[in-house]
Amino acid sequence: MSLDVIPIHVVNAPPGDAGLSGNAPPLLRELLEMVQRLLDTGEGTAIDLSALPLTPADLDWLRERLGSGEISATLQAGGESTLAETACPGVWWVTHRNEQGTLTAQFIEVAFVPELVKAHPQDVAIGRDQLELVISAL
Amino acid sequence: MSLDVIPIHVVNAPPGDAGLSGNAPPLLRELLEMVQRLLDTGEGTAIDLSALPLTPADLDWLRERLGSGEISATLQAGGESTLAETACPGVWWVTHRNEQGTLTAQFIEVAFVPELVKAHPQDVAIGRDQLELVISAL
Repeated sequence: MSLDVIPIHVVNAPPGDAGLSGNAPPLLRELLEMVQRLLDTGEGTAIDLSALPLTPADLDWLRERLGSGEISATLQAGGESTLAETACPGVWWVTHRNEQGTLTAQFIEVAFVPELVKAHPQDVAIGRDQLELVISAL
Repeated sequence: MSLDVIPIHVVNAPPGDAGLSGNAPPLLRELLEMVQRLLDTGEGTAIDLSALPLTPADLDWLRERLGSGEISATLQAGGESTLAETACPGVWWVTHRNEQGTLTAQFIEVAFVPELVKAHPQDVAIGRDQLELVISAL
């Protein structure tokens, strides 16, 4: 991660905490509420990390606390997006890169399945039509 | 793919079709019905390729007809499972490997999201409890 690619607000790190701004721990508490909401209502939500005053050290701290899960998905569309489940099931670390590989956005998404991984009915219907064409050409 | 890892039934290939058994085209028609069922009822289904009399050439022919999509997911649990969307949205090519990397099962799954990619509510609840512990230790 580079400071060039995310609009980081300059924040003062407390001495001894190597770049931590103190803004990351409240995010964990917000995540806990988001996970509870998912369980209660099925509603998924996301935090746009690029829009928050987080230092690279804050982001490392968050990723370390959340850990790594068993599932990771990649989406190739223009650039590459990765959707990695954390050790906390239902909490996904999502990054989007452009065609040059530069990080353009970073989210934590709370959902049973990240939106980007789902096939949408209108696309499935288009695929069905294409499959019909393939079969009729056999 | 190796003949050793999938119980291939010996089938006679028609001359000139380099290993094709003739069993793959009917599978495409079955897939079309499965995709239509998904659209009509939301019900996902799967074909266990390992259980069918398909040659490696049949499997290659199927993969070629179905093409490659934008999304691919991997699951690390014991061995590696890959769930690759085909060019036909909602149709996923799923392979399971053991810890030695040997292919142990192969499916075509028709679903908006493959079952294995979904976080299950009971796991999300366990994750919430762990997140609470992390936060209380801050």
